[in-house]
Amino acid sequence: MTVSISISAVRRNCCLYILMGMEAWKILLLLLCGHVLSIQVFGVPGTCPADVGSKCEDDDWKGEFFPDIPKIKYEGPSSKNPLSFKWYNAEEEILGKKMKDWMRFSVAFWHTFRGTGGDPFGAQTKFWPWEDGTNSLAMAKRRMRANFEFINKLGVDRWCFHDRDIAPDGKTIEETNANLDEVVALAKELQGTKIRPLWGTAQLFLHPRFMHGAATSSEVGVYAYAAAQVKKAMEATHYLGGENYVFWGGREGYQTLLNTDMGRELDHMARFLEAAVAYKKKIGFNGTLLIEPKPQEPTKHQYDWDVATTANFLRKYGIIDEFKINIECNHATLSGHSCHHELETARINGLLGNIDANTGDPQIGWDTDQFLTDIGEATLVMLSVVRNGGLAPGGFNFDAKLRRESTDVEDLFIAHISGMDTLARGLRNVAKLIEDGSLEALVRKRYSSFESEIGAQIEAGKADFEMLEKKAMEWGEPKVPSAKQELAEMIFQAAL
Amino acid sequence: MTVSISISAVRRNCCLYILMGMEAWKILLLLLCGHVLSIQVFGVPGTCPADVGSKCEDDDWKGEFFPDIPKIKYEGPSSKNPLSFKWYNAEEEILGKKMKDWMRFSVAFWHTFRGTGGDPFGAQTKFWPWEDGTNSLAMAKRRMRANFEFINKLGVDRWCFHDRDIAPDGKTIEETNANLDEVVALAKELQGTKIRPLWGTAQLFLHPRFMHGAATSSEVGVYAYAAAQVKKAMEATHYLGGENYVFWGGREGYQTLLNTDMGRELDHMARFLEAAVAYKKKIGFNGTLLIEPKPQEPTKHQYDWDVATTANFLRKYGIIDEFKINIECNHATLSGHSCHHELETARINGLLGNIDANTGDPQIGWDTDQFLTDIGEATLVMLSVVRNGGLAPGGFNFDAKLRRESTDVEDLFIAHISGMDTLARGLRNVAKLIEDGSLEALVRKRYSSFESEIGAQIEAGKADFEMLEKKAMEWGEPKVPSAKQELAEMIFQAAL
Amino acid sequence: MTVSISISAVRRNCCLYILMGMEAWKILLLLLCGHVLSIQVFGVPGTCPADVGSKCEDDDWKGEFFPDIPKIKYEGPSSKNPLSFKWYNAEEEILGKKMKDWMRFSVAFWHTFRGTGGDPFGAQTKFWPWEDGTNSLAMAKRRMRANFEFINKLGVDRWCFHDRDIAPDGKTIEETNANLDEVVALAKELQGTKIRPLWGTAQLFLHPRFMHGAATSSEVGVYAYAAAQVKKAMEATHYLGGENYVFWGGREGYQTLLNTDMGRELDHMARFLEAAVAYKKKIGFNGTLLIEPKPQEPTKHQYDWDVATTANFLRKYGIIDEFKINIECNHATLSGHSCHHELETARINGLLGNIDANTGDPQIGWDTDQFLTDIGEATLVMLSVVRNGGLAPGGFNFDAKLRRESTDVEDLFIAHISGMDTLARGLRNVAKLIEDGSLEALVRKRYSSFESEIGAQIEAGKADFEMLEKKAMEWGEPKVPSAKQELAEMIFQAAL
Amino acid sequence: MTVSISISAVRRNCCLYILMGMEAWKILLLLLCGHVLSIQVFGVPGTCPADVGSKCEDDDWKGEFFPDIPKIKYEGPSSKNPLSFKWYNAEEEILGKKMKDWMRFSVAFWHTFRGTGGDPFGAQTKFWPWEDGTNSLAMAKRRMRANFEFINKLGVDRWCFHDRDIAPDGKTIEETNANLDEVVALAKELQGTKIRPLWGTAQLFLHPRFMHGAATSSEVGVYAYAAAQVKKAMEATHYLGGENYVFWGGREGYQTLLNTDMGRELDHMARFLEAAVAYKKKIGFNGTLLIEPKPQEPTKHQYDWDVATTANFLRKYGIIDEFKINIECNHATLSGHSCHHELETARINGLLGNIDANTGDPQIGWDTDQFLTDIGEATLVMLSVVRNGGLAPGGFNFDAKLRRESTDVEDLFIAHISGMDTLARGLRNVAKLIEDGSLEALVRKRYSSFESEIGAQIEAGKADFEMLEKKAMEWGEPKVPSAKQELAEMIFQAAL
Repeated sequence: MTVSISISAVRRNCCLYILMGMEAWKILLLLLCGHVLSIQVFGVPGTCPADVGSKCEDDDWKGEFFPDIPKIKYEGPSSKNPLSFKWYNAEEEILGKKMKDWMRFSVAFWHTFRGTGGDPFGAQTKFWPWEDGTNSLAMAKRRMRANFEFINKLGVDRWCFHDRDIAPDGKTIEETNANLDEVVALAKELQGTKIRPLWGTAQLFLHPRFMHGAATSSEVGVYAYAAAQVKKAMEATHYLGGENYVFWGGREGYQTLLNTDMGRELDHMARFLEAAVAYKKKIGFNGTLLIEPKPQEPTKHQYDWDVATTANFLRKYGIIDEFKINIECNHATLSGHSCHHELETARINGLLGNIDANTGDPQIGWDTDQFLTDIGEATLVMLSVVRNGGLAPGGFNFDAKLRRESTDVEDLFIAHISGMDTLARGLRNVAKLIEDGSLEALVRKRYSSFESEIGAQIEAGKADFEMLEKKAMEWGEPKVPSAKQELAEMIFQAAL
Repeated sequence: MTVSISISAVRRNCCLYILMGMEAWKILLLLLCGHVLSIQVFGVPGTCPADVGSKCEDDDWKGEFFPDIPKIKYEGPSSKNPLSFKWYNAEEEILGKKMKDWMRFSVAFWHTFRGTGGDPFGAQTKFWPWEDGTNSLAMAKRRMRANFEFINKLGVDRWCFHDRDIAPDGKTIEETNANLDEVVALAKELQGTKIRPLWGTAQLFLHPRFMHGAATSSEVGVYAYAAAQVKKAMEATHYLGGENYVFWGGREGYQTLLNTDMGRELDHMARFLEAAVAYKKKIGFNGTLLIEPKPQEPTKHQYDWDVATTANFLRKYGIIDEFKINIECNHATLSGHSCHHELETARINGLLGNIDANTGDPQIGWDTDQFLTDIGEATLVMLSVVRNGGLAPGGFNFDAKLRRESTDVEDLFIAHISGMDTLARGLRNVAKLIEDGSLEALVRKRYSSFESEIGAQIEAGKADFEMLEKKAMEWGEPKVPSAKQELAEMIFQAAL
Repeated sequence: MTVSISISAVRRNCCLYILMGMEAWKILLLLLCGHVLSIQVFGVPGTCPADVGSKCEDDDWKGEFFPDIPKIKYEGPSSKNPLSFKWYNAEEEILGKKMKDWMRFSVAFWHTFRGTGGDPFGAQTKFWPWEDGTNSLAMAKRRMRANFEFINKLGVDRWCFHDRDIAPDGKTIEETNANLDEVVALAKELQGTKIRPLWGTAQLFLHPRFMHGAATSSEVGVYAYAAAQVKKAMEATHYLGGENYVFWGGREGYQTLLNTDMGRELDHMARFLEAAVAYKKKIGFNGTLLIEPKPQEPTKHQYDWDVATTANFLRKYGIIDEFKINIECNHATLSGHSCHHELETARINGLLGNIDANTGDPQIGWDTDQFLTDIGEATLVMLSVVRNGGLAPGGFNFDAKLRRESTDVEDLFIAHISGMDTLARGLRNVAKLIEDGSLEALVRKRYSSFESEIGAQIEAGKADFEMLEKKAMEWGEPKVPSAKQELAEMIFQAAL
Repeated sequence: MTVSISISAVRRNCCLYILMGMEAWKILLLLLCGHVLSIQVFGVPGTCPADVGSKCEDDDWKGEFFPDIPKIKYEGPSSKNPLSFKWYNAEEEILGKKMKDWMRFSVAFWHTFRGTGGDPFGAQTKFWPWEDGTNSLAMAKRRMRANFEFINKLGVDRWCFHDRDIAPDGKTIEETNANLDEVVALAKELQGTKIRPLWGTAQLFLHPRFMHGAATSSEVGVYAYAAAQVKKAMEATHYLGGENYVFWGGREGYQTLLNTDMGRELDHMARFLEAAVAYKKKIGFNGTLLIEPKPQEPTKHQYDWDVATTANFLRKYGIIDEFKINIECNHATLSGHSCHHELETARINGLLGNIDANTGDPQIGWDTDQFLTDIGEATLVMLSVVRNGGLAPGGFNFDAKLRRESTDVEDLFIAHISGMDTLARGLRNVAKLIEDGSLEALVRKRYSSFESEIGAQIEAGKADFEMLEKKAMEWGEPKVPSAKQELAEMIFQAAL
């Protein structure tokens, strides 16, 4: 089974140092520690490695995980305290809803608790004090406790997970499922009544068995394995009260068309999703199924390239009504679109389901998954959300990670606060824009010529070419006014 | 002297309409010259300016347009003659069809006869000897004669046109249509029995009236105008025996979402295309309607971004069965895909209708419309064409232009010969690949695990998650063989 | 001669409609109007075409050019008046200097007065009321008057020009120079004592003679022609009291290396610039010579790719002390860098001379030359300017244009106000950042380990590898703290 | 079952240090195994796992590493044998030199022997039979034997290495150096008289201590550590008879300018390189020092962005004569240039020292390090090499890796053969181009106007602006011929 490195007997004086240098959420610390394990993490400045010498076998890491971090409070824009909200005031009402109900923020377990800081050229840089260097079940549970302390201190109500980042692989599917069950049971307990998953998903990309894809693998055995895994992950999400279930096809694509039967692979993907829909209904899971587009990385081309490509796929196979889309801003820009474009495309196709809130670097051609701090961008994002009437049962999941070189525990809080404040600021700006009304008026005026009889006929599909030709000849050269683009930008910027 | 066009006497009733310095095919020197026009084009090095001093009033430019260019013949790969084919042998049979029937080459009137060499920073550089510097009807007819001499010498049977590049605008739609009729009548005569348009289209992007779009303009009058224009262009294409009709929505998009109602614009576009379908049927035009995707340029975002986006649009509005797609390779790469990817995507969606054969520059972010000379690329393109069973009633249109600095008449021939030979070489390579069989075998072997009972069940949509889970548990860890990507590349390269 | 279209007699009933579809500042309306010209510009919605029927022969367009536009005043952030400054308050002191002295704003004549709205796929869209459709000397003078009214109403003291956009080409160099002299004399008069050029330059890219380059043309005659033109443009700039002279090598590059001797071309460019330096000194022009990098467009590759490439060139040929660099933000992003990166690279090389203030579109691969409205970006730009102690004798030139579809006269003002306010807001934010001090402290702390004896030795070049190895062995594993990147971003954003 | 590495007994004094899942050559399995280590790699389909159960303590892996692979021979273009050369014939003379002397091929130890197939979203996929899953000294030695068997079977004479990929880290610098010494001694022995390193280098990017850079780290202790490491790596390279020493600054750059003092960091980098030069001279190492530019990845911006940026840095600090440049094609394209452009830029700056032969994917924004199989590209590369008179003492290093999904041992051979054949084909094409002479003639003719007296004066720096203006006026409008770009491409393609 699995990715794991199982070390059945690692004895005394053994300094175990495992760096799995994949990008954040894709990374596992895969040591199954059987009996005795003495770990010595060489002092890494900026983190405070815990004395975990004898803790491998149990999960009771007493005491707080974040002893120096208070519950984060709203202190307003003039506060200089990095560990406070300046713009996000959860209970404050904006545009008829509480901020927290617009936002529905979620913490991504993988980035925050499994991110190592590794990159394609570098080993792990993050050594959190509560980590013992193993991928044991005990460690998985301890980590889950840290997750809930983090969530509570941050003041959010939702979290997201991949099956394999919360519980370790076992040697067989059965054993792996048992591991998952154990951790999920703990999470259920820790969730209490208020907290629940925004969404869950199955990790179908890290393990080498998925190297040719999961639903689109050239191997029938992998297809079956993936089905078994999604089945279980959907059950776990359902059990935890998850509101959505996500499909991200990181390996559903190709490296070169020379060795690929793209048509057949897409057919397989459709069959897989149909089976997922059927299973969802069978178990009574009412959450939304979400597809998360990404154009490339890790493969050269991923089949769920962008919103339009995904919508075409769903329509072609007749399953468009069963899915919505989870839009990640950095994925949007990698596909050549602004995030706002992708959000609007999803919205007008009736597919806007959830947002993975992050941002990329405008000069960089891969997924950097940074926390969004651009207030103009955040305002555009919130504009789509408000137009959509909110995102529920979706929300904002922070699919974002600390940069490799940010290695303090407090950086985890600073980054999330910054991301939450930025979106909150965006929402406040949208409220200003709407109250001001100038931008909306500008757009309404632009299309006002369609508020005519002939406009109505066109929009009703009743204007044929002959009638239109007659009109065009009758009217002569049409008047075409300025688009007032710089004015629109001036109005927009004034609201920031 | 030089570059300049000095017009010493422009007399009565002369509507002078000059469009300069746009990129090649988008540029027109639109002088409507009523009666007398004396133009003096000063000697431009590299072209051989004709004595056209007194020729404005008639269209009988006697003698050859290309006196130094013979009919281009196949001389085989060892020929050093630039004005011969080394690989394209029209009547030779390859893979069961004549090369000319695989290729169905077409000359693009706009690039070849209306391209000026202008670019966003530079004025016209091309001064063909037969041009008199006007956009008169007489000039339009003379140019049409040059077109057919070119086509005949090159040995192709098809051409493509935009309504406005073959005939000048008039003051009213009626006058404009009359101009078009006159030129079209001449073209019909010159076509003879063998030559016909591969496709025709309406130019809905150059004139300022279309600055906000045509079918997606915010102005209802522009929508009507565009309808009248498409109606007429479709009639002209039908009259000339055109096999396809193309929609390229160069202005159907936006510069900024701030002033745009994207949903409403897309609805308008759908209404427009529905009306086009209805009109096509009404007049009994049996040619294929083609949509040509392009992601951007001239606008920031065009609605027909790529094949998948276009397919989604067609499906959403229920008109997928009425259209196919015209793929331009340089548009493909601008949208982040290889040309081969777009061709395959169209093919497996049943939408591959025509190819605008050109190529871009891998370092450049705009449409350079160069002639394709990369034999690897050409082989991949032909692979899709062969898999599609050919393109008919579509074909290969050379939507490609000389670079600004290539200013000799013979450069027009050299470029087309090079493009035709490159694709011919691609076809020959595909034949080698197919005869060799190794690549196909490699792919077949890759998916062989689906040639099983369970594979058949999956493909038939009969494998649910419970059954698959059971199988996965039963089978244990799946075997995942090498993708043999480097071997596939070695086999491919050996065929070049 | 040259690029121009000279129409010596255009008589009655002649509707002259000239569309020159090049990008804004690169475009000329080149009609030399000799005697009588009756022009009728068809009503274009959104502009108010003047009755200029009989005005071709003189330059006295009485009355205001912008009758509806008042002098623009500072009204503060709460103003809703688009024709007021909300952030730019010229006389207000910030960080020890008046805002106007930090900014030194300049209007770019070409974009504002010669921009047509044309693009590679579209004809002219802008028809300003004062334009008569000609490129006559009279029109050139009238346009110059409009320029100074614009400058005065906007409240700036500087302007920039290309020789060929302020005065029309003649048939010979002598005639062209005479035209230029005449317009320059008028400009000198209109400038008064307060206004002067921020910089002047020679337009060496539009005319077809420059299609292979100017200083790097393969033709020796073009090299000489370019020298003559720069000589004259430098004289004109000097005469007008210009503070800088710019070289932008839009055609100094290649389309394909296959036909190019890059080494030789670069040698020629060096010889040319050396001659320019010598001539500058000879005539006593004390302005700064500036090179403006751009990576590509119109050519595939331009030799002055970015700041570092330009610096390497200047160093290689030993002329680094004679030049500074003019950085355009949109050029920076096209070369793969942030604008801030290019500014800082220039600054630390001692080369930051001037800024062409504009911005591009993050999804677009060509130069869109939009007005900058992003306040985060503006803050980073101003950070470099403040660190540089200002830009004088350079300044901010608005090398920015209205989008094609913005066609009202007032749009010209709105765009400039927006650009000025954005940079002013950036300056105010920098003041906040500096007063707060947190960001600077964070950076200082990061490098504090070099404030040691060994750090000083290293920086003095006195630490050899043997000594360093000894230290490294002695010290053991170094401590490496968090880079606090998310904190830095939080601090930065709080200042916006 | 699978991928997993289960370590059943790791005994005393065992410092286990596992780095996984980074991109190929950057990855180390760093197990320092003190005494006993029993590893069991479970069967992974497509590889043939060896029985290495009890081999941990010694390095004598008897028998062949590649028993099924014969010595690769030249069989000519008609051979269908994947394990033969079709174009590379080492002893054949082309253009006056043996192919092997033009090529000077080198195997990159890291990609070939330390590449795991991991990527940012995926774990290791490659499990070579000779690997025991450890990073022990014993394993390092066994792996070195595999390296030399590979080199010998492939028929090349050179290899390249990073210090840390050939020998494991120790707990102290001293211990690490001792490990290195031991492996280097073995390599020296295995090299024999014919084989030697093309270059060596120090790996200054993988370990977390280098997360802020090595020579440009904000920590003085890291600077010293890096100095110690380079000192040792240079000694090892010298000892092995290495012909060059490379600096690749993968962490010398920044993630955000907000926390970075770029000027100071660049000063530090210069001091570091100066010390390297001094040390090289001190120990009598006569190899060339090479800098390898890369624009980005892993950081947002790397200081050695491209050839021109690197040259500017070297000139600024006065050390240009001490270095040459190692150009990697995929790095070239990531910086916005063609590989040929970077090669030519280096060549005309006198800096072309070595080539890291690989290629990227035109649609992908990161370093894919694929083997070059494009024959057009290879021909351009060889054109630069031939113009440079060869690369010695540099050569072609295959800084290229199998794709993640290519997991058979034979894939390693196939990929190298394909890369070698492609470059060999390029060289043969260059010979054809040179023999044909048309392309060279075309270029010579283009610049022929400079073969005049005035041309000579210009090139000698004796033509001032006044003289040139006089000439320009005298000559009138220059003649500007066609650039014949499509003809140049036709000639080029005919040679492929």
